Amino acid sequence: MIPGIRFAGIASGIKNAALDLGLVVFDEPAYITAVYTKNKVKSAHILYNKRLRSNEVEALLVNSGCANACTGPEGVRDLKELSEKLTSHLKAADGKIVFASTGVIGRRLPTETMAKALPAAVKDLRKNGIDSFSRAIMTTDTYPKIARASFKGEKEYSIAGVAKGAGMINPLLATMLVFIFTDYPVSPEKIRRKLLQGAKESFERITVDGECSTNDSVMLFTRQGREDLGCLDAFCNALFSVMKELAMMIVRDGEGATRVIHITVNGAQKKDIAEKIARRIAISPLTKTAFFGCDPNWGRIIAAAGDADVPIQPAKVEIILQGEVLAKNGIEMPFDEDKVKKLMEEKELELIVNLHNGRASYDIYTTDLTFDYVKINASYRS
Amino acid sequence: MIPGIRFAGIASGIKNAALDLGLVVFDEPAYITAVYTKNKVKSAHILYNKRLRSNEVEALLVNSGCANACTGPEGVRDLKELSEKLTSHLKAADGKIVFASTGVIGRRLPTETMAKALPAAVKDLRKNGIDSFSRAIMTTDTYPKIARASFKGEKEYSIAGVAKGAGMINPLLATMLVFIFTDYPVSPEKIRRKLLQGAKESFERITVDGECSTNDSVMLFTRQGREDLGCLDAFCNALFSVMKELAMMIVRDGEGATRVIHITVNGAQKKDIAEKIARRIAISPLTKTAFFGCDPNWGRIIAAAGDADVPIQPAKVEIILQGEVLAKNGIEMPFDEDKVKKLMEEKELELIVNLHNGRASYDIYTTDLTFDYVKINASYRS
Repeated sequence: MIPGIRFAGIASGIKNAALDLGLVVFDEPAYITAVYTKNKVKSAHILYNKRLRSNEVEALLVNSGCANACTGPEGVRDLKELSEKLTSHLKAADGKIVFASTGVIGRRLPTETMAKALPAAVKDLRKNGIDSFSRAIMTTDTYPKIARASFKGEKEYSIAGVAKGAGMINPLLATMLVFIFTDYPVSPEKIRRKLLQGAKESFERITVDGECSTNDSVMLFTRQGREDLGCLDAFCNALFSVMKELAMMIVRDGEGATRVIHITVNGAQKKDIAEKIARRIAISPLTKTAFFGCDPNWGRIIAAAGDADVPIQPAKVEIILQGEVLAKNGIEMPFDEDKVKKLMEEKELELIVNLHNGRASYDIYTTDLTFDYVKINASYRS
Repeated sequence: MIPGIRFAGIASGIKNAALDLGLVVFDEPAYITAVYTKNKVKSAHILYNKRLRSNEVEALLVNSGCANACTGPEGVRDLKELSEKLTSHLKAADGKIVFASTGVIGRRLPTETMAKALPAAVKDLRKNGIDSFSRAIMTTDTYPKIARASFKGEKEYSIAGVAKGAGMINPLLATMLVFIFTDYPVSPEKIRRKLLQGAKESFERITVDGECSTNDSVMLFTRQGREDLGCLDAFCNALFSVMKELAMMIVRDGEGATRVIHITVNGAQKKDIAEKIARRIAISPLTKTAFFGCDPNWGRIIAAAGDADVPIQPAKVEIILQGEVLAKNGIEMPFDEDKVKKLMEEKELELIVNLHNGRASYDIYTTDLTFDYVKINASYRS
């Protein structure tokens, strides 16, 4: 529970009988600070939220089952209409409701269905309703994702973050909606850079399939009023831990994934080089299928590294998987194949690629590529 | 049959009982003109061939079952040793044998096994041996790949091209070995640019999984002697048709693929923009799984286009699949879903993405992403 915030999650009829509409209402207007997708194609909720004149928010309405992306000016008008209706139900001020959507791209929101369900959503609002809210925003997620933290300033403050995301997950960002709520009072001006930094170190450090979505959004809602800046660092630490925890929940729930691989590239001349190589390995289908098959096929890893479009000296590269050295100086080291295969059966794997060419490093989390990823995505719309 | 060239394909013991060693001998030294992978990690055969002092070739030895990549200086020395042995069997001149390898990365060539098999390979040489040669270089290929053409100059000339490749296929280039033989006399200086151009318009226009291999090679062997430049254009046309045919054979044999999708991006301001968008769509796992599932999920296509890191105006984009307009001005058009699903069951699909923003275009061929791709690659080494 976070003082002053109420949550709801109901089945409005967008999806069959499942929870599909989440509502959050702030008793006092909150500040919103947001990071949105870098995809050139942006969903209507992002276009709409960005056009709002103020960063004061009284409510957040989120639906699953329809992404409201590629719906043109009508998609934005649909949100304006819903905003007017919800404003009158809540007796809120005009233009202080923000939106988020997730689901199939290219379909209009069923606004009539949603409008009819608004009174039920308002009625469902509860201080401890965050669990049903988190379930209402799920798509292919297999579990709801909530992370919490608290810290001390002039008083004890709380943070609760809610996320959804399992596929179309790529850093910068993913088909991922993240909402972070707190009773800590701080202005967007003071916290925006920290939020960006937190996103870089959490949501941009995971990938499932290298796909960047049209709807990705990270929204932080903070309290208005007198700021308590003495504990700003404590807030940021708590915020980062919530973001990191949600990011790990998302990658662990990667579509069809049986395991998570933590890839660290070190010994690079520059961080940028380490990052490009780490990302290239992380999205390589051949590397990801080998992880699914528990095959210590380090040749695919070095081939992906060589294809990252950055300088690399193959003859220096060392590859360590689960603590076992598979290759050194760019060539295979004798290793016990059965032992390594066994070690690869773990749910979380550690892969280190040392370029032995400098001191910079970068790390990222990815999943394996499995039959179930193909199955889920060959039939997502049906 | 090409006058003056003999082919062999035998089971040398690198793989179990399968054909795994191909040999080509030129009765008169031929010229080689080659294009190699852009991957920073290059196999030993590429390093070795590039270091040869002359572009005169008396023989070509190709093995499957071992890529001889990431094998360090020893991998190159192994080829030197094999070259010496084969030179003495063939009574050839020193340093006029070129190599190519395909298979698992990181393992040394079994040179003793291969050396022992050389006399059998020499004995197997036949003018009409190109079929067993083409089978000896296969890995996950499901069929051998040979394309032929002929044209008239001072006399009738022939071209025969042989390729292998099914996975780790990405433009620039693929795990793809291509050998093109002809009795047409032309020097590398005269033909190099044309070969590069041909590769750009054929092998760089296909992708299976976005993976660029360490071993990719396209080698053209032409005759020495007095050039017949009056029919250079006819030769180039025939050469391009052979390259295009081999490229299509490779993409149609894409690992696990059930269909090939021809993606054309047009209406771009610049060709470069059209190419980046076409390539981004072509490697998108979500688009490729939707094609596998016969799901006209155009939202994933436009989302991939928006993620190509080039300017795009979503509100102008039109998407046409199998002649049916799915989206126009960036939003969905009414279409008959059952009809389009049915049309998607074809083996070869036509996808057009019109940016309506200029006159440049680019096209590329890709495959769908299937259970079998995962199956083949989760267990490739075992």
